[in-house]
Amino acid sequence: MPISKEQARDIAAQRETRFETRRATVPALEEVLYEAAPVLDHGFVRVIDYMGDDAAIVQAARVSYGTGTKSVHDDAGLIRYLMRHRHTTPFEMCEIKYHVKLPVFVARQWIRHRTANVNEYSARYSILDREFYIPAPDQLAAQSTSNRQGRGDVLEGEEAARVLALLKEDSARSYDHYEEMLNEGPDGKPADPDRQGLTRELARMNLPLNIYTQWYWKTDLHNLLHFLSLRADSHAQYEIRVYADAMLETVKRWVPIVYEAFLDYRMGGAMMSSKALAVVRRMLAGEAVDQAGSGLSAREWRELMTVLQGDG
Amino acid sequence: MPISKEQARDIAAQRETRFETRRATVPALEEVLYEAAPVLDHGFVRVIDYMGDDAAIVQAARVSYGTGTKSVHDDAGLIRYLMRHRHTTPFEMCEIKYHVKLPVFVARQWIRHRTANVNEYSARYSILDREFYIPAPDQLAAQSTSNRQGRGDVLEGEEAARVLALLKEDSARSYDHYEEMLNEGPDGKPADPDRQGLTRELARMNLPLNIYTQWYWKTDLHNLLHFLSLRADSHAQYEIRVYADAMLETVKRWVPIVYEAFLDYRMGGAMMSSKALAVVRRMLAGEAVDQAGSGLSAREWRELMTVLQGDG
Amino acid sequence: MPISKEQARDIAAQRETRFETRRATVPALEEVLYEAAPVLDHGFVRVIDYMGDDAAIVQAARVSYGTGTKSVHDDAGLIRYLMRHRHTTPFEMCEIKYHVKLPVFVARQWIRHRTANVNEYSARYSILDREFYIPAPDQLAAQSTSNRQGRGDVLEGEEAARVLALLKEDSARSYDHYEEMLNEGPDGKPADPDRQGLTRELARMNLPLNIYTQWYWKTDLHNLLHFLSLRADSHAQYEIRVYADAMLETVKRWVPIVYEAFLDYRMGGAMMSSKALAVVRRMLAGEAVDQAGSGLSAREWRELMTVLQGDG
Amino acid sequence: MPISKEQARDIAAQRETRFETRRATVPALEEVLYEAAPVLDHGFVRVIDYMGDDAAIVQAARVSYGTGTKSVHDDAGLIRYLMRHRHTTPFEMCEIKYHVKLPVFVARQWIRHRTANVNEYSARYSILDREFYIPAPDQLAAQSTSNRQGRGDVLEGEEAARVLALLKEDSARSYDHYEEMLNEGPDGKPADPDRQGLTRELARMNLPLNIYTQWYWKTDLHNLLHFLSLRADSHAQYEIRVYADAMLETVKRWVPIVYEAFLDYRMGGAMMSSKALAVVRRMLAGEAVDQAGSGLSAREWRELMTVLQGDG
Repeated sequence: MPISKEQARDIAAQRETRFETRRATVPALEEVLYEAAPVLDHGFVRVIDYMGDDAAIVQAARVSYGTGTKSVHDDAGLIRYLMRHRHTTPFEMCEIKYHVKLPVFVARQWIRHRTANVNEYSARYSILDREFYIPAPDQLAAQSTSNRQGRGDVLEGEEAARVLALLKEDSARSYDHYEEMLNEGPDGKPADPDRQGLTRELARMNLPLNIYTQWYWKTDLHNLLHFLSLRADSHAQYEIRVYADAMLETVKRWVPIVYEAFLDYRMGGAMMSSKALAVVRRMLAGEAVDQAGSGLSAREWRELMTVLQGDG
Repeated sequence: MPISKEQARDIAAQRETRFETRRATVPALEEVLYEAAPVLDHGFVRVIDYMGDDAAIVQAARVSYGTGTKSVHDDAGLIRYLMRHRHTTPFEMCEIKYHVKLPVFVARQWIRHRTANVNEYSARYSILDREFYIPAPDQLAAQSTSNRQGRGDVLEGEEAARVLALLKEDSARSYDHYEEMLNEGPDGKPADPDRQGLTRELARMNLPLNIYTQWYWKTDLHNLLHFLSLRADSHAQYEIRVYADAMLETVKRWVPIVYEAFLDYRMGGAMMSSKALAVVRRMLAGEAVDQAGSGLSAREWRELMTVLQGDG
Repeated sequence: MPISKEQARDIAAQRETRFETRRATVPALEEVLYEAAPVLDHGFVRVIDYMGDDAAIVQAARVSYGTGTKSVHDDAGLIRYLMRHRHTTPFEMCEIKYHVKLPVFVARQWIRHRTANVNEYSARYSILDREFYIPAPDQLAAQSTSNRQGRGDVLEGEEAARVLALLKEDSARSYDHYEEMLNEGPDGKPADPDRQGLTRELARMNLPLNIYTQWYWKTDLHNLLHFLSLRADSHAQYEIRVYADAMLETVKRWVPIVYEAFLDYRMGGAMMSSKALAVVRRMLAGEAVDQAGSGLSAREWRELMTVLQGDG
Repeated sequence: MPISKEQARDIAAQRETRFETRRATVPALEEVLYEAAPVLDHGFVRVIDYMGDDAAIVQAARVSYGTGTKSVHDDAGLIRYLMRHRHTTPFEMCEIKYHVKLPVFVARQWIRHRTANVNEYSARYSILDREFYIPAPDQLAAQSTSNRQGRGDVLEGEEAARVLALLKEDSARSYDHYEEMLNEGPDGKPADPDRQGLTRELARMNLPLNIYTQWYWKTDLHNLLHFLSLRADSHAQYEIRVYADAMLETVKRWVPIVYEAFLDYRMGGAMMSSKALAVVRRMLAGEAVDQAGSGLSAREWRELMTVLQGDG
């Protein structure tokens, strides 16, 4: 269960409160503000603050006063132009802050994106909850035979059952031992008065990488889109991709014009090399080109064919 | 004049508009939102957006839900603790965006602070206004004889008059020639139809460093405080210090608890070296210590004495 | 003259000295180490230190010990793969430090690239030299009529002569007045004993944006390539592009495999949007597509046609 | 065992090779280049590349050519001045690259320092080794009762034995199950031909936080010193502090003047608040001050007394 009853009550209370502001405000994002969108078995993503909107990007690009006289149509054209030509600084003028609950092995990938502000729950200071990510059966994938980072067929039958059992049992046992080593009762006093209890900063090291942690994560829109272009991509590991997908929905509410441009130019687009462009030009001129005559390696050729066939 | 009539009208209109939001809101900062605080002869600083408040820092430090049950007194204690022990990440959870009009030589110092987002008016794309910083007479300082970066006495009489005349005449002449080279009439057509006009990206190089530019500058509270600790300091050049002072006033409105802690621990505090601490300990033990016996260089000794006499 | 006689002597002495090292060393780059490559009329770029080579990138990608057993062919394949798939962190494992002399208006564009370390000559502390960028006659371009950031025809005849005269005269006069305000004689004493002299931090503001400054600029290879992809591009202003071109030559010496991959995938490549790819697919299927039926704006259509015709 | 026989052979071979270079070179650091300094039970730190030396900082501060004419004495004075006044950019002109083997829970703290370049061993791509951090008996600390982040007494007797047994058994069992789920034989083929094996990116999540990982970590000297000031500090967790201590030794070899200044101004120094300075001034004037009359909180008073008594 991602959210406890007490947390749900706090969130509801926070959502009840309304303030008056002169700042740019996005009603579609306000609608879901503070709400936790469930991700995986115990995780969530929720927006807890934001700054700016589509118009703030246009305004920064024009470094002008007020909302200007341009129509929405023009704003969209300018945002598309900025996205197309990688003029990234106006997108940095918007900021968003998320509260995320996620397994530690996902947090380890995520934190590699450095241009962000992070406050994570500290297992040095506090005791982690007994919550572990256990994959749904349809995500229990075998190693891909063609791609060392990819997933192959889904495990079935006895093998699947055995994997799930191992993950559950090891998680439960590790946590039992974590608690035993800590030796803290519910009142903060020793559970077993004859033992001192191991310090938290050491006991935590017995916990497996599928335990859940949580953090506040704040970044600007440019760096968020960069994160999403890598993590909402089909090459990303499923367990981080579902977070990126949930965040993409918040981007759609927040800055709808940017969202459309992002889908068109980033998520659905492709970088073509000089050599790939040369191949395309020869093909468009009516020439039959094969890999041998393309100047591309076998791998690059395959990648180009995927792009040109449109299922990439 | 920092603000044109048209700009003043736009700002007034923007200030009229109110929205409803679920986000943390700071009434004392909303009061001055969009308003331009004048700085130097033609410059200004104005807050155009913000995210977070004192409570957001506490919340991040606790990575907890809701506003919690702690009293304001506890919040202040926690913020002071974070500031004292340089736990900087919670301060990164607040963000602010300024619109600043400033001379280019000030912008050149300012931009050295890299952890910020910037959109500057482009003199490659547009034509700069005829506005130059001319120091007030009481700021026309001579070179300090003791400090190569500092200011000495204020120039007077004929010398002061001559300096002001040179600055004004050179600014005016440079701008006249800028316009002549551009050859653009008020309608965008050539002022002199027999000339083509030099491209803007080249013509701008005739302009002096006291011409005004403007930008949007967005940063998080931690990096803002670092900026202010260096630029609101007495060692900073006067022309950037007045901007920092104006921004410090916005910090006071925005996050008053942080502001107090910042004044106490940063602006009014001092770093003492290991050797300086040794001297203080000997003094407290009743020993008479002089520079020769202190282990400090003459310069370090002077700096320590200034700190201990409290006029530093 | 970019380099004074004294500087040339220092550089020659530094180039004479050789040390023994266990670090990865690149003989082709060592050949030109410390040497100043002239840029514009008084500027230069010179490499003064570097860390890593092509193999360091491969090594980081493999996080392995030693140089490994892979052939150079495999290294090139891996580097090309990393470049193609924007796996950027291995390129961050190489670092380079330049000493650059450049006009202030170029420095103002350059400094917008924030992920770099910079130490600039301080006009607050020291006196700038009397050196100004005056464009060569074939660079005296008119404003482009089609592109607000671009250059059109080269000015000729009387207009060109007038522009050059204005730039030269204004530079010279500004510098004369800078010196007069400073009132420093060659021995550091007042030139005119009856005047105090204006402090350096103020006097500098009379100088125009075409005066030369200099800095040490250090960055990693990934960020350097990003800089070069924007600044060695045909859309960059000529006066910064010539610096980027000179630096591209040092990249060629330093990491030749990366250089080739960079030319292929970045400089000669193109990003295609989802809609542009759809157009290419329809064309390859034999369909005649025009702008109206393409789903692209007129501007996007023009950009796509340029890419597909290969003169982009 | 931190280093395998094969790795030791590779390192020895790498250390045998010498190159000629024109770059600044530091013989004392070259002496240990590539050598692994053991840390904890299976970890290590080793320098694998560096750029710059003490003189490079001086050179950057002076933005001058050549090594200049200043004596070493002056260089030390300048470096101390830069350190004292937090003029940080010249320290950014030096760069160092480490290869580190460390437990995952240490890596999770370390990675919070964002201004660095990192390439970590990927458990998505490769299989981790069977190596776990098990604390030495004298590090098996109880939770501190006075400090929620600190360590108290060392556990003894049966409790200590039980903790060690749990850590060892859980590590071993988790790794056994990791291997079982992976189902990869030494030849890369299925160990059990009737099972497919779980993909690596999922299987890794069964591993505990005390498993070892490794990475290349590169940063500039300024950011390294900031890292060390926090992580070589007595408040840092022991398991990261031992890495910081080992790195501090490399700093001593690399930039001995900076090292001395760092010990004096950072490691051995203390920041005093405005209120703390007021207390010191009153004490020096002969006044008896107690906490109640100090204006300091009980906690701040305790911290100040610790500093003034010199055992801080």
